[in-house]
Amino acid sequence: MDNRAGYMPISPDMNIPRIEFIGIIGLPEVEPGARLGELIAAACRSQDTPLQAGDVLVVTQKAVSKAEGRLVDLRGVAPSPFARQLAAPSGRDPRVIEVVLRESRAIVRSDPDRGILITETRHGFICANAGVDSSNIPGDEVVSLLPEDPDRSARTIRAEIMDAAGLDLPVIVSDTFGRPWREGQVNFAIGASGISPLRDYRGEADAVGKVMGVTNIAEADEIAAAAELVMGKVIGAPAAVVRGHAYLRGEQGRRALLRDRSMDLFR
Amino acid sequence: MDNRAGYMPISPDMNIPRIEFIGIIGLPEVEPGARLGELIAAACRSQDTPLQAGDVLVVTQKAVSKAEGRLVDLRGVAPSPFARQLAAPSGRDPRVIEVVLRESRAIVRSDPDRGILITETRHGFICANAGVDSSNIPGDEVVSLLPEDPDRSARTIRAEIMDAAGLDLPVIVSDTFGRPWREGQVNFAIGASGISPLRDYRGEADAVGKVMGVTNIAEADEIAAAAELVMGKVIGAPAAVVRGHAYLRGEQGRRALLRDRSMDLFR
Repeated sequence: MDNRAGYMPISPDMNIPRIEFIGIIGLPEVEPGARLGELIAAACRSQDTPLQAGDVLVVTQKAVSKAEGRLVDLRGVAPSPFARQLAAPSGRDPRVIEVVLRESRAIVRSDPDRGILITETRHGFICANAGVDSSNIPGDEVVSLLPEDPDRSARTIRAEIMDAAGLDLPVIVSDTFGRPWREGQVNFAIGASGISPLRDYRGEADAVGKVMGVTNIAEADEIAAAAELVMGKVIGAPAAVVRGHAYLRGEQGRRALLRDRSMDLFR
Repeated sequence: MDNRAGYMPISPDMNIPRIEFIGIIGLPEVEPGARLGELIAAACRSQDTPLQAGDVLVVTQKAVSKAEGRLVDLRGVAPSPFARQLAAPSGRDPRVIEVVLRESRAIVRSDPDRGILITETRHGFICANAGVDSSNIPGDEVVSLLPEDPDRSARTIRAEIMDAAGLDLPVIVSDTFGRPWREGQVNFAIGASGISPLRDYRGEADAVGKVMGVTNIAEADEIAAAAELVMGKVIGAPAAVVRGHAYLRGEQGRRALLRDRSMDLFR
């Protein structure tokens, strides 16, 4: 203990906030129809980090999409003239562009020369290629789509974990998106069950007693972001356990995180 | 150990990725001129989580700005006619708008009716109010500015920790920003020293052996995001320790995270 003057004494029952992120490795290759929650609970036991009450689970879109069979064999895709036109300047595969367009409800930005296509997905996410992606998928001619309803995916995994481990744990489905203005990608929450995606401090007092006007923290995105650090593209862990976070319960799902178009200054 | 068929056996020396985020509470109110690195090292000892080799430190902009005296007394600010005009429809304080404009090099979006002013700061960050903020600052007539050079701030804190604890630890300075298209705010990295803000996987093979074309992860932003969970607006912890992350060394600082205007489709 440091008791020099000027340091607030820490009483032994003062809670030090501590949150641990644990990557879940050792899952088998996820096949369509797999019960992901069960695989994750088993993998957690097998790596000596069994799931505990209070844990939050983060699962990558890629694992969810595989379990849900959200894979498209490009050999069965006939690109439209518009897809060919968007693909041509950069030499991208026009069949992938075709799949991206089918998954989108609007093109937000495109730069065909650089092969960039940023769209709004049917769910309302704005991201490159509508989340269509070929990394970490066996087979050269297969791409994955985002889950049809990532909140439902989270609910399903939550129920499977309840069955497999007897614990009701919140689940976040995450995916890796780029951001305007900033280099690099980070993980975002695209679906959630059992956890409030936002923590709204508006109207509460801050640490000096001032009422906060605007602070509404996207905790599900913060959790998804750090989970990436223990999952990673090369580690290949399809899920992570978040231990020690005093989360808020809630069933708002992804809609809480999607800004209404009428309020958005960037569309 | 779960040895059912289908589960990859976990060998005892296979590393389970684990990262812990620890909030640092119990710092005294930070005064201009404070040696923040020293205060943090002492607070870590006093809460029985002394700094260790391999730790990464996240420090909030607010604590840094206080230590660096980046505070403005609004009683000395005379708002320009333009600031008055921007402030009037929403009833915001025109002196705050004046300070925001002084800290900005461009207005990116403004919606005076809703009191929204999104600008590009002199550093190149795009955020609401150029990061000018009154929360967690004692006194009704005082606002804080972003640090003049948050990379330099990170270097200073790193050197102070070296002095106080004999450890060379990377430091990230974080602030809370909103995002286009998504509700809620998250913490971002605005400065860094001793750590590469990005981890570039381009050209490497993913878990199934495919070479990745675009993945470049903004790890500093992911770290800053999760650190918010243990700092929080109400907890009021001005810093967090990140333990167990196999970070990349680097001195690129914030510039690595700022997309060049010519490559940005959203300006």
